[in-house]
Amino acid sequence: MREVFQQELQEVQERLVEIATLVATSIENATSAFNESNVALAERVIADDTKIDELTVSLDELAINILARQQPVARDLRIVVSALRISASLERMGDMSEHIAQLARYRFPEKVVPKSLRPTFADMGRLDVDMARKLAELLRTEDVRLAEEIRNDDDKVDALHLSVFDTVLGEKWKGGAEDTVDATLASRYHERFADHAVSIAKKVQYLATGDWIPTED
Amino acid sequence: MREVFQQELQEVQERLVEIATLVATSIENATSAFNESNVALAERVIADDTKIDELTVSLDELAINILARQQPVARDLRIVVSALRISASLERMGDMSEHIAQLARYRFPEKVVPKSLRPTFADMGRLDVDMARKLAELLRTEDVRLAEEIRNDDDKVDALHLSVFDTVLGEKWKGGAEDTVDATLASRYHERFADHAVSIAKKVQYLATGDWIPTED
Repeated sequence: MREVFQQELQEVQERLVEIATLVATSIENATSAFNESNVALAERVIADDTKIDELTVSLDELAINILARQQPVARDLRIVVSALRISASLERMGDMSEHIAQLARYRFPEKVVPKSLRPTFADMGRLDVDMARKLAELLRTEDVRLAEEIRNDDDKVDALHLSVFDTVLGEKWKGGAEDTVDATLASRYHERFADHAVSIAKKVQYLATGDWIPTED
Repeated sequence: MREVFQQELQEVQERLVEIATLVATSIENATSAFNESNVALAERVIADDTKIDELTVSLDELAINILARQQPVARDLRIVVSALRISASLERMGDMSEHIAQLARYRFPEKVVPKSLRPTFADMGRLDVDMARKLAELLRTEDVRLAEEIRNDDDKVDALHLSVFDTVLGEKWKGGAEDTVDATLASRYHERFADHAVSIAKKVQYLATGDWIPTED
Protein backbone atom coordinates (compact mmCIF):
# COMPACT_ATOMS: atom_id res chain seq x y z
CA MET A 1 0.00 0.00 0.00
CA ARG A 2 2.75 2.41 1.03
CA GLU A 3 4.64 1.68 -2.17
CA VAL A 4 1.59 2.30 -4.34
CA PHE A 5 1.05 5.55 -2.48
CA GLN A 6 4.63 6.67 -3.14
CA GLN A 7 4.18 5.87 -6.82
CA GLU A 8 1.00 7.90 -6.87
CA LEU A 9 2.64 10.86 -5.16
CA GLN A 10 5.36 10.65 -7.76
CA GLU A 11 2.76 10.73 -10.49
CA VAL A 12 1.21 13.84 -8.92
CA GLN A 13 4.62 15.48 -8.85
CA GLU A 14 5.35 14.53 -12.48
CA ARG A 15 2.03 15.94 -13.58
CA LEU A 16 2.67 19.20 -11.72
CA VAL A 17 6.04 19.46 -13.47
CA GLU A 18 4.36 18.75 -16.81
CA ILE A 19 1.76 21.50 -16.26
CA ALA A 20 4.39 23.96 -15.00
CA THR A 21 6.47 23.26 -18.11
CA LEU A 22 3.45 23.99 -20.31
CA VAL A 23 2.85 27.19 -18.35
CA ALA A 24 6.49 28.21 -18.95
CA THR A 25 6.05 27.65 -22.70
CA SER A 26 2.76 29.51 -22.57
CA ILE A 27 4.21 32.63 -20.90
CA GLU A 28 7.24 32.49 -23.21
CA ASN A 29 4.97 32.51 -26.26
CA ALA A 30 2.59 35.05 -24.74
CA THR A 31 5.32 37.56 -23.92
CA SER A 32 6.91 37.07 -27.38
CA ALA A 33 3.52 37.56 -29.01
CA PHE A 34 2.98 40.63 -26.85
CA ASN A 35 6.37 42.22 -27.44
CA GLU A 36 6.58 41.40 -31.15
CA SER A 37 2.89 41.67 -32.13
CA ASN A 38 2.86 38.08 -33.33
CA VAL A 39 -0.82 37.26 -33.74
CA ALA A 40 -0.27 33.62 -34.77
CA LEU A 41 1.72 33.01 -31.61
CA ALA A 42 -0.95 34.80 -29.55
CA GLU A 43 -3.58 32.49 -30.99
CA ARG A 44 -1.51 29.45 -30.16
CA VAL A 45 -1.25 30.58 -26.52
CA ILE A 46 -5.02 31.05 -26.35
CA ALA A 47 -5.63 27.60 -27.88
CA ASP A 48 -3.03 25.92 -25.65
CA ASP A 49 -4.65 27.23 -22.48
CA THR A 50 -7.43 24.65 -22.89
CA LYS A 51 -4.80 21.94 -22.53
CA ILE A 52 -3.52 23.48 -19.28
CA ASP A 53 -7.08 23.68 -17.97
CA GLU A 54 -7.77 20.04 -18.84
CA LEU A 55 -4.56 18.83 -17.24
CA THR A 56 -5.27 20.70 -14.00
CA VAL A 57 -8.81 19.28 -13.80
CA SER A 58 -7.43 15.81 -14.40
CA LEU A 59 -4.70 16.28 -11.79
CA ASP A 60 -7.29 17.45 -9.27
CA GLU A 61 -9.32 14.30 -9.90
CA LEU A 62 -6.21 12.16 -9.35
CA ALA A 63 -5.43 13.98 -6.09
CA ILE A 64 -8.98 13.54 -4.83
CA ASN A 65 -8.87 9.85 -5.74
CA ILE A 66 -5.64 9.48 -3.81
CA LEU A 67 -7.24 11.11 -0.78
CA ALA A 68 -10.20 8.71 -1.04
CA ARG A 69 -8.21 5.51 -1.57
CA GLN A 70 -5.02 6.09 0.40
CA GLN A 71 -6.37 8.27 3.18
CA PRO A 72 -3.02 9.89 3.84
CA VAL A 73 -2.26 11.68 7.11
CA ALA A 74 0.34 14.17 8.39
CA ARG A 75 2.92 15.24 5.82
CA ASP A 76 1.53 12.95 3.09
CA LEU A 77 -1.87 14.58 3.43
CA ARG A 78 -0.33 18.05 3.22
CA ILE A 79 1.48 17.07 0.03
CA VAL A 80 -1.77 16.06 -1.66
CA VAL A 81 -3.66 19.14 -0.44
CA SER A 82 -0.75 21.32 -1.59
CA ALA A 83 -0.89 19.67 -5.01
CA LEU A 84 -4.52 20.79 -5.32
CA ARG A 85 -3.55 24.35 -4.44
CA ILE A 86 -0.53 24.37 -6.71
CA SER A 87 -2.70 23.08 -9.53
CA ALA A 88 -5.14 25.99 -9.00
CA SER A 89 -2.28 28.52 -9.12
CA LEU A 90 -0.79 26.96 -12.27
CA GLU A 91 -4.21 27.17 -13.89
CA ARG A 92 -4.35 30.89 -13.06
CA MET A 93 -0.84 31.43 -14.41
CA GLY A 94 -2.06 29.92 -17.69
CA ASP A 95 -4.97 32.37 -17.61
CA MET A 96 -2.59 35.32 -17.17
CA SER A 97 -0.56 34.14 -20.20
CA GLU A 98 -3.79 33.91 -22.14
CA HIS A 99 -4.81 37.44 -21.11
CA ILE A 100 -1.43 38.80 -22.25
CA ALA A 101 -1.84 36.99 -25.58
CA GLN A 102 -5.39 38.34 -25.93
CA LEU A 103 -4.10 41.90 -25.60
CA ALA A 104 -1.55 41.20 -28.37
CA ARG A 105 -4.24 39.73 -30.62
CA TYR A 106 -6.67 42.52 -29.90
CA ARG A 107 -4.23 45.30 -30.85
CA PHE A 108 -2.70 43.51 -33.84
CA PRO A 109 -1.15 44.76 -36.14
CA GLU A 110 -0.29 47.55 -33.69
CA LYS A 111 2.00 46.83 -30.76
CA VAL A 112 0.23 46.83 -27.42
CA VAL A 113 2.43 49.38 -25.67
CA PRO A 114 4.16 52.50 -26.97
CA LYS A 115 7.92 52.61 -27.43
CA SER A 116 8.74 54.17 -24.09
CA LEU A 117 7.35 51.15 -22.22
CA ARG A 118 8.65 48.34 -24.40
CA PRO A 119 11.95 47.78 -22.55
CA THR A 120 10.04 47.57 -19.26
CA PHE A 121 7.62 44.97 -20.61
CA ALA A 122 10.48 43.04 -22.22
CA ASP A 123 12.12 42.85 -18.77
CA MET A 124 8.90 41.85 -17.02
CA GLY A 125 8.26 39.20 -19.64
CA ARG A 126 11.75 37.77 -19.31
CA LEU A 127 11.40 37.61 -15.53
CA ASP A 128 8.01 35.89 -15.78
CA VAL A 129 9.49 33.30 -18.16
CA ASP A 130 12.50 32.74 -15.88
CA MET A 131 10.23 32.36 -12.87
CA ALA A 132 8.03 29.83 -14.65
CA ARG A 133 11.06 27.77 -15.70
CA LYS A 134 12.50 27.89 -12.20
CA LEU A 135 9.12 26.85 -10.87
CA ALA A 136 9.01 23.74 -13.07
CA GLU A 137 12.56 22.94 -11.90
CA LEU A 138 11.62 23.58 -8.26
CA LEU A 139 8.66 21.22 -8.55
CA ARG A 140 10.94 18.59 -10.11
CA THR A 141 13.90 18.88 -7.75
CA GLU A 142 12.49 20.50 -4.58
CA ASP A 143 15.69 22.54 -4.52
CA VAL A 144 14.54 25.33 -2.20
CA ARG A 145 17.22 27.73 -3.43
CA LEU A 146 15.03 28.10 -6.49
CA ALA A 147 12.18 29.22 -4.25
CA GLU A 148 14.40 32.02 -2.96
CA GLU A 149 15.33 33.00 -6.51
CA ILE A 150 11.67 33.11 -7.46
CA ARG A 151 10.95 35.48 -4.57
CA ASN A 152 13.82 37.72 -5.63
CA ASP A 153 12.57 37.74 -9.22
CA ASP A 154 9.14 38.70 -7.93
CA ASP A 155 10.59 41.75 -6.18
CA LYS A 156 12.00 42.84 -9.54
CA VAL A 157 8.66 42.28 -11.26
CA ASP A 158 6.92 44.35 -8.57
CA ALA A 159 9.41 47.19 -9.08
CA LEU A 160 8.85 47.11 -12.85
CA HIS A 161 5.07 47.03 -12.29
CA LEU A 162 5.33 50.20 -10.20
CA SER A 163 7.59 51.80 -12.82
CA VAL A 164 4.91 51.25 -15.46
CA PHE A 165 2.58 53.44 -13.37
CA ASP A 166 5.34 56.02 -12.93
CA THR A 167 5.70 56.18 -16.71
CA VAL A 168 1.99 56.27 -17.46
CA LEU A 169 1.34 58.92 -14.82
CA GLY A 170 4.46 60.94 -15.66
CA GLU A 171 4.56 64.25 -17.50
CA LYS A 172 6.24 62.76 -20.56
CA TRP A 173 3.48 60.22 -21.19
CA LYS A 174 1.99 60.89 -24.61
CA GLY A 175 -0.14 57.74 -24.82
CA GLY A 176 -3.87 57.93 -25.35
CA ALA A 177 -6.47 56.27 -23.13
CA GLU A 178 -6.13 53.02 -25.06
CA ASP A 179 -2.38 52.86 -24.39
CA THR A 180 -2.99 53.63 -20.74
CA VAL A 181 -5.64 50.92 -20.36
CA ASP A 182 -3.49 48.34 -22.14
CA ALA A 183 -0.35 49.16 -20.16
CA THR A 184 -2.31 48.99 -16.89
CA LEU A 185 -3.88 45.62 -17.66
CA ALA A 186 -0.74 44.11 -19.19
CA SER A 187 1.34 45.16 -16.20
CA ARG A 188 -1.21 43.72 -13.80
CA TYR A 189 -1.24 40.37 -15.66
CA HIS A 190 2.56 40.14 -15.63
CA GLU A 191 2.60 40.96 -11.92
CA ARG A 192 -0.14 38.46 -11.02
CA PHE A 193 1.65 35.74 -12.98
CA ALA A 194 4.70 36.34 -10.80
CA ASP A 195 2.59 36.39 -7.61
CA HIS A 196 1.21 32.94 -8.37
CA ALA A 197 4.73 31.65 -8.96
CA VAL A 198 5.75 32.92 -5.51
CA SER A 199 2.64 31.41 -3.95
CA ILE A 200 3.55 27.98 -5.37
CA ALA A 201 7.23 28.35 -4.46
CA LYS A 202 6.25 29.05 -0.84
CA LYS A 203 4.15 25.90 -0.72
CA VAL A 204 6.96 23.73 -2.08
CA GLN A 205 9.39 25.35 0.32
CA TYR A 206 7.06 24.67 3.21
CA LEU A 207 6.70 21.03 2.27
CA ALA A 208 10.46 20.66 1.81
CA THR A 209 11.49 22.40 5.02
CA GLY A 210 8.47 22.43 7.32
CA ASP A 211 8.80 26.20 7.72
CA TRP A 212 5.23 27.32 7.72
CA ILE A 213 4.60 30.62 5.98
CA PRO A 214 0.99 31.13 6.92
CA THR A 215 -0.15 33.71 4.40
CA GLU A 216 -2.38 33.13 1.43
CA ASP A 217 -0.52 35.68 -0.73
CA MET B 1 -17.76 8.64 14.34
CA ARG B 2 -20.27 9.48 11.64
CA GLU B 3 -22.07 11.84 13.99
CA VAL B 4 -18.84 13.63 14.93
CA PHE B 5 -18.07 13.93 11.24
CA GLN B 6 -21.45 15.49 10.51
CA GLN B 7 -20.91 17.97 13.33
CA GLU B 8 -17.51 18.85 11.90
CA LEU B 9 -18.92 19.34 8.41
CA GLN B 10 -21.52 21.61 9.95
CA GLU B 11 -18.78 23.60 11.61
CA VAL B 12 -16.98 23.95 8.27
CA GLN B 13 -20.20 25.20 6.72
CA GLU B 14 -20.82 27.66 9.54
CA ARG B 15 -17.32 29.03 9.23
CA LEU B 16 -17.71 29.46 5.47
CA VAL B 17 -20.93 31.38 6.08
CA GLU B 18 -19.15 33.50 8.69
CA ILE B 19 -16.32 34.36 6.29
CA ALA B 20 -18.72 35.02 3.41
CA THR B 21 -20.69 37.37 5.68
CA LEU B 22 -17.49 39.26 6.54
CA VAL B 23 -16.66 39.44 2.83
CA ALA B 24 -20.12 40.89 2.15
CA THR B 25 -19.54 43.57 4.81
CA SER B 26 -16.08 44.19 3.40
CA ILE B 27 -17.29 44.78 -0.17
CA GLU B 28 -20.17 46.89 1.11
CA ASN B 29 -17.74 49.13 3.01
CA ALA B 30 -15.19 49.10 0.19
CA THR B 31 -17.67 50.18 -2.47
CA SER B 32 -19.12 52.86 -0.16
CA ALA B 33 -15.61 54.12 0.59
CA PHE B 34 -14.86 54.06 -3.13
CA ASN B 35 -18.02 55.82 -4.26
CA GLU B 36 -18.12 58.38 -1.45
CA SER B 37 -14.36 58.93 -0.88
CA ASN B 38 -14.65 57.85 2.72
CA VAL B 39 -11.08 57.32 3.84
CA ALA B 40 -11.95 56.12 7.36
CA LEU B 41 -14.17 53.41 5.90
CA ALA B 42 -11.45 52.48 3.40
CA GLU B 43 -9.00 52.03 6.26
CA ARG B 44 -11.45 49.84 8.12
CA VAL B 45 -11.77 47.57 5.06
CA ILE B 46 -7.99 47.30 4.80
CA ALA B 47 -7.65 46.48 8.52
CA ASP B 48 -10.55 43.99 8.44
CA ASP B 49 -8.98 41.99 5.63
CA THR B 50 -6.47 40.55 8.12
CA LYS B 51 -9.41 38.99 9.95
CA ILE B 52 -10.69 37.38 6.75
CA ASP B 53 -7.20 36.04 6.01
CA GLU B 54 -6.86 34.59 9.50
CA LEU B 55 -10.27 32.94 9.38
CA THR B 56 -9.54 31.30 6.03
CA VAL B 57 -6.17 29.95 7.24
CA SER B 58 -7.89 28.61 10.34
CA LEU B 59 -10.70 27.04 8.29
CA ASP B 60 -8.13 25.39 6.03
CA GLU B 61 -6.43 23.88 9.06
CA LEU B 62 -9.77 22.54 10.29
CA ALA B 63 -10.54 21.03 6.88
CA ILE B 64 -7.12 19.36 6.70
CA ASN B 65 -7.57 18.00 10.22
CA ILE B 66 -10.94 16.56 9.23
CA LEU B 67 -9.34 14.87 6.22
CA ALA B 68 -6.64 13.40 8.46
CA ARG B 69 -8.91 12.19 11.27
CA GLN B 70 -12.13 11.27 9.48
CA GLN B 71 -10.71 10.13 6.16
CA PRO B 72 -13.91 10.87 4.29
CA VAL B 73 -14.64 9.34 0.89
CA ALA B 74 -17.04 9.99 -1.99
CA ARG B 75 -19.35 12.97 -1.53
CA ASP B 76 -18.06 13.73 1.99
CA LEU B 77 -14.54 14.02 0.66
CA ARG B 78 -15.68 16.34 -2.11
CA ILE B 79 -17.40 18.57 0.43
CA VAL B 80 -14.19 19.01 2.42
CA VAL B 81 -12.05 19.59 -0.69
CA SER B 82 -14.63 22.09 -1.96
CA ALA B 83 -14.50 23.89 1.37
CA LEU B 84 -10.75 24.41 0.85
CA ARG B 85 -11.38 25.85 -2.59
CA ILE B 86 -14.26 28.03 -1.47
CA SER B 87 -12.08 29.33 1.35
CA ALA B 88 -9.37 30.31 -1.18
CA SER B 89 -11.92 32.17 -3.31
CA LEU B 90 -13.40 33.99 -0.31
CA GLU B 91 -9.89 35.06 0.65
CA ARG B 92 -9.39 36.50 -2.84
CA MET B 93 -12.75 38.29 -2.67
CA GLY B 94 -11.53 39.95 0.51
CA ASP B 95 -8.37 40.98 -1.35
CA MET B 96 -10.45 42.57 -4.14
CA SER B 97 -12.42 44.56 -1.53
CA GLU B 98 -9.14 45.66 -0.03
CA HIS B 99 -7.80 46.75 -3.44
CA ILE B 100 -10.94 48.82 -4.07
CA ALA B 101 -10.55 50.41 -0.64
CA GLN B 102 -6.86 51.11 -1.31
CA LEU B 103 -7.77 53.02 -4.47
CA ALA B 104 -10.22 55.13 -2.44
CA ARG B 105 -7.59 55.83 0.21
CA TYR B 106 -4.93 56.59 -2.33
CA ARG B 107 -6.99 59.22 -4.17
CA PHE B 108 -8.54 60.80 -1.07
CA PRO B 109 -9.82 63.55 -0.83
CA GLU B 110 -10.50 63.24 -4.56
CA LYS B 111 -13.01 60.71 -5.81
CA VAL B 112 -11.44 57.80 -7.66
CA VAL B 113 -13.43 58.08 -10.86
CA PRO B 114 -14.74 61.12 -12.74
CA LYS B 115 -18.43 61.96 -12.77
CA SER B 116 -19.26 60.23 -16.03
CA LEU B 117 -18.32 56.83 -14.59
CA ARG B 118 -19.79 57.14 -11.11
CA PRO B 119 -23.22 55.67 -11.92
CA THR B 120 -21.53 52.67 -13.56
CA PHE B 121 -19.33 52.00 -10.52
CA ALA B 122 -22.28 52.51 -8.20
CA ASP B 123 -24.13 49.79 -10.14
CA MET B 124 -21.14 47.43 -10.18
CA GLY B 125 -20.64 47.97 -6.46
CA ARG B 126 -24.30 47.26 -5.69
CA LEU B 127 -24.15 44.07 -7.75
CA ASP B 128 -20.97 42.91 -6.01
CA VAL B 129 -22.59 43.51 -2.61
CA ASP B 130 -25.77 41.67 -3.65
CA MET B 131 -23.72 38.76 -4.96
CA ALA B 132 -21.71 38.51 -1.75
CA ARG B 133 -24.88 38.52 0.35
CA LYS B 134 -26.49 35.89 -1.85
CA LEU B 135 -23.32 33.86 -1.60
CA ALA B 136 -23.42 33.84 2.20
CA GLU B 137 -27.09 32.81 1.97
CA LEU B 138 -26.31 30.12 -0.62
CA LEU B 139 -23.59 28.68 1.64
CA ARG B 140 -26.07 28.68 4.54
CA THR B 141 -29.10 27.25 2.77
CA GLU B 142 -27.68 25.46 -0.31
CA ASP B 143 -30.63 26.92 -2.19
CA VAL B 144 -29.32 26.54 -5.74
CA ARG B 145 -31.67 29.18 -7.12
CA LEU B 146 -29.28 31.65 -5.49
CA ALA B 147 -26.45 30.18 -7.55
CA GLU B 148 -28.42 30.97 -10.71
CA GLU B 149 -29.06 34.51 -9.48
CA ILE B 150 -25.36 34.97 -8.80
CA ARG B 151 -24.55 33.91 -12.36
CA ASN B 152 -27.09 36.35 -13.73
CA ASP B 153 -25.66 39.15 -11.59
CA ASP B 154 -22.22 38.30 -12.91
CA ASP B 155 -23.43 38.78 -16.50
CA LYS B 156 -24.53 42.28 -15.49
CA VAL B 157 -21.17 43.00 -13.86
CA ASP B 158 -19.38 41.83 -17.00
CA ALA B 159 -21.51 44.13 -19.14
CA LEU B 160 -20.76 47.08 -16.85
CA HIS B 161 -17.05 46.18 -16.90
CA LEU B 162 -17.07 46.34 -20.71
CA SER B 163 -19.01 49.61 -20.60
CA VAL B 164 -16.25 51.15 -18.47
CA PHE B 165 -13.82 50.48 -21.32
CA ASP B 166 -16.30 51.89 -23.83
CA THR B 167 -16.42 55.09 -21.78
CA VAL B 168 -12.70 55.36 -21.20
CA LEU B 169 -11.90 54.67 -24.87
CA GLY B 170 -14.74 56.84 -26.19
CA GLU B 171 -14.38 60.24 -27.81
CA LYS B 172 -16.03 62.05 -24.93
CA TRP B 173 -13.55 60.80 -22.32
CA LYS B 174 -11.81 63.80 -20.78
CA GLY B 175 -10.01 61.92 -18.00
CA GLY B 176 -6.25 62.06 -17.63
CA ALA B 177 -3.98 59.03 -17.44
CA GLU B 178 -4.57 58.76 -13.70
CA ASP B 179 -8.34 58.55 -14.17
CA THR B 180 -7.85 55.96 -16.88
CA VAL B 181 -5.54 53.79 -14.76
CA ASP B 182 -7.86 54.00 -11.75
CA ALA B 183 -10.99 53.20 -13.75
CA THR B 184 -9.25 50.24 -15.39
CA LEU B 185 -8.02 48.75 -12.13
CA ALA B 186 -11.22 49.47 -10.20
CA SER B 187 -13.33 47.88 -12.89
CA ARG B 188 -11.08 44.83 -12.99
CA TYR B 189 -11.33 44.40 -9.19
CA HIS B 190 -15.12 44.65 -9.24
CA GLU B 191 -15.27 42.11 -12.05
CA ARG B 192 -12.86 39.65 -10.40
CA PHE B 193 -14.84 39.88 -7.16
CA ALA B 194 -17.91 38.78 -9.09
CA ASP B 195 -15.99 35.98 -10.87
CA HIS B 196 -14.95 34.48 -7.55
CA ALA B 197 -18.56 34.60 -6.36
CA VAL B 198 -19.62 32.64 -9.44
CA SER B 199 -16.78 30.17 -8.95
CA ILE B 200 -17.97 29.45 -5.39
CA ALA B 201 -21.63 29.32 -6.45
CA LYS B 202 -20.77 26.67 -9.05
CA LYS B 203 -19.03 24.55 -6.44
CA VAL B 204 -22.00 24.71 -4.07
CA GLN B 205 -24.37 23.95 -6.92
CA TYR B 206 -22.25 20.97 -7.91
CA LEU B 207 -22.25 19.60 -4.38
CA ALA B 208 -26.00 20.14 -4.04
CA THR B 209 -26.99 18.65 -7.37
CA GLY B 210 -24.08 16.49 -8.55
CA ASP B 211 -24.02 18.38 -11.88
CA TRP B 212 -20.35 18.67 -12.57
CA ILE B 213 -19.30 21.91 -14.20
CA PRO B 214 -15.70 21.09 -14.93
CA THR B 215 -14.16 24.52 -15.43
CA GLU B 216 -11.81 26.30 -13.05
CA ASP B 217 -13.12 29.77 -14.01
